[in-house]
Amino acid sequence: MAKINENYLKLQAGYLFPEIGRRVNEFQKANPKSSIIRMGIGDVTIPLVPSVIIAFHEGVNEMAKIDTFKGYGPEQGYGFLREAISDNEYKYRGVNIEADEIFISDGSKCDTGNIQEIFSHDSRIAITDPVYPVYADVTVMAGKTGSISSNGYFEGIIYMPCNEKNHFVPEIPKERPDLIFLCYPNNPTGATASKAELKKWVEYALQNKCIILYDAAYESFIREDHIPHSIFEIEGAEKVAMEFRSFSKKAGFTGTRCAFTVIPKALMAYTSQGEKKSLHALWYRRHTTKFNGVSYPVQKAAAAIYTEQGKKEVQGVIDYYMENAQIMRESLSEQGFRVYGGVNAPYIWAKAKNHISSWDLFDKLLREANVVGTPGSGFGPSGEGFFRFSAFASRENVIKAMSRIKKVSV
Amino acid sequence: MAKINENYLKLQAGYLFPEIGRRVNEFQKANPKSSIIRMGIGDVTIPLVPSVIIAFHEGVNEMAKIDTFKGYGPEQGYGFLREAISDNEYKYRGVNIEADEIFISDGSKCDTGNIQEIFSHDSRIAITDPVYPVYADVTVMAGKTGSISSNGYFEGIIYMPCNEKNHFVPEIPKERPDLIFLCYPNNPTGATASKAELKKWVEYALQNKCIILYDAAYESFIREDHIPHSIFEIEGAEKVAMEFRSFSKKAGFTGTRCAFTVIPKALMAYTSQGEKKSLHALWYRRHTTKFNGVSYPVQKAAAAIYTEQGKKEVQGVIDYYMENAQIMRESLSEQGFRVYGGVNAPYIWAKAKNHISSWDLFDKLLREANVVGTPGSGFGPSGEGFFRFSAFASRENVIKAMSRIKKVSV
Repeated sequence: MAKINENYLKLQAGYLFPEIGRRVNEFQKANPKSSIIRMGIGDVTIPLVPSVIIAFHEGVNEMAKIDTFKGYGPEQGYGFLREAISDNEYKYRGVNIEADEIFISDGSKCDTGNIQEIFSHDSRIAITDPVYPVYADVTVMAGKTGSISSNGYFEGIIYMPCNEKNHFVPEIPKERPDLIFLCYPNNPTGATASKAELKKWVEYALQNKCIILYDAAYESFIREDHIPHSIFEIEGAEKVAMEFRSFSKKAGFTGTRCAFTVIPKALMAYTSQGEKKSLHALWYRRHTTKFNGVSYPVQKAAAAIYTEQGKKEVQGVIDYYMENAQIMRESLSEQGFRVYGGVNAPYIWAKAKNHISSWDLFDKLLREANVVGTPGSGFGPSGEGFFRFSAFASRENVIKAMSRIKKVSV
Repeated sequence: MAKINENYLKLQAGYLFPEIGRRVNEFQKANPKSSIIRMGIGDVTIPLVPSVIIAFHEGVNEMAKIDTFKGYGPEQGYGFLREAISDNEYKYRGVNIEADEIFISDGSKCDTGNIQEIFSHDSRIAITDPVYPVYADVTVMAGKTGSISSNGYFEGIIYMPCNEKNHFVPEIPKERPDLIFLCYPNNPTGATASKAELKKWVEYALQNKCIILYDAAYESFIREDHIPHSIFEIEGAEKVAMEFRSFSKKAGFTGTRCAFTVIPKALMAYTSQGEKKSLHALWYRRHTTKFNGVSYPVQKAAAAIYTEQGKKEVQGVIDYYMENAQIMRESLSEQGFRVYGGVNAPYIWAKAKNHISSWDLFDKLLREANVVGTPGSGFGPSGEGFFRFSAFASRENVIKAMSRIKKVSV
């Protein structure tokens, strides 16, 4: 008989966001007149900027004419987009990443989800706690873990707790991992990693022959000059790290779909015989075999954010969200919450008062303030007692939500 | 040390299409004045039809306004597209496939590449020979095979030869597989499977608890009434089959990217304890965890092919390609080639004369006729001695290519 991949059965049935959806729907049904403000899922709300729209239309027009029509493109993306990224995201900051080290894809979720395929099945994976759930779920699906323990951890994954004490940047784990997922600016905590902190990780990876899978999806929200935008700002990182970036939050592409992954040609891993092999070559094989490139008009639209006008427009949207974040930070602080994030990231990580649990706070805010956030415990055990607010909302809703929360005794 | 997935090293370095590209480039360099006609890769050449272009622009416009902007969509696709597919591809033919049994994706290559993830690692895979190379490559990458043998077969894969004797529809293999890849109308042979033949496979799968992975990417090229368009036209297939379909060839979406996979809710596989589990639920979990949906304007564009006007326009393009196929069939037959396919598929599968090899014919046609096709042996050992011509070309080029080939003594 055809058998299933039983590792899927280890996954928790109640994934975070569907559970939030269930509770919100239930409440809305019982209270049809209440107007709920959603700051939970972390989805952008502002339309694509004019430069992107113009280029998107141009791309569609090219698809209408025989002389400019595009069939299969290069799976790893068009040169014009890869070069724009190389110039504007890397060389502009003095980081030497070439266009052909960049793979265009339809999302960082896909890339961070699929990247483990090019590594040995017995690779040990380290993730932070709390964490973006995909890193853990795909590790479970691939059969690299046991069952989930009563402490909320899967057997076989190396968890690195992030908490107030370590400013949400983990210590080097006691047990040596092969692959280390790091995400800065961080989802969900909004924390950043300094150059010194990233340097510590790069040196550890160099010494221990580990690979760092660096998720920088929120890079464009960095406001403070001293925070690194890329792990490749750290010397030697090109030998131990790859980097995931996305247009989703940077340019409102959550529904348009475009992202990229940087795999330096200097990045190597080993055969069991100790022979060095290029991870760029392996991912190239994976990408060209299981993927067929991003829609041409979408790539054209993405490239428009690197024009002078496009840059200004995109920055305007980011500023708007980050002003939201500042308003939220200030209001929640005034209300006596301990507040993290929101300075270089679009997420506020607030500590619940009076030791109430994340889900209790969720229910209370939903019922009494009609505001939806994300319970921190949904991102891992160390998130218990915290709550994530997203700055991706209209100014009006942000102000309204903060004033409603003020009236609730939490 | 971080180790690679060594299964990748078993893959043949010289993948078919890059090798073709290499030889064509070399020839073009040495003969810069010769005008090469490319009928190799199977990529469409006619632009998107007007209805699709209009809807695509409308989708982009919606992304420009706050009231109609779309962020994250449902990973499995928007209801409007899934319903249009259910109605026009299935219910219209009396096949009961519901909208929520359809998963929208960015390509059938991705879906046929990723689908094995939801099955047990020890699943035995059966593929035809010749075959679309992705089915084999992903099986190798997943570590389900040994090395490649001197006969061109990977150890561990069950190969089902397709040749003139069996009209390119395989016999039931002696060894029982768990998963069976079938593709009709076939790439590369252009063959079709009759209802009786598909019925034989469905019954075998029902009796032996196998799953059929049915690739119907070329369904829209079927011209003869008695040829089934979907495996779900066969009674009981919803219990043993899933189906892959694509807009790539149907509507010229190779550079626009949209496809779909049908997994009926009745389709079950088993745990090692013999418990039945829904494959729809497993794929739903995979799809929502590792994928983030297809670009909204692209889904909007895809749905336009199901309007009355869109249907007419798309059919016009298909008719054009199939008229090409007929011209090619007739010309090659007249020239004394034994010719298959091209009646219900955009591919012509021609047998080389005088026992010359596929690659020798490739080189001869490239050098003497400046025409590029695909050597049949690139699709598997049973393709040796055959040659694939694609009907995706301009009429002018088709006529020119046929007259050039006529002058070559092959």
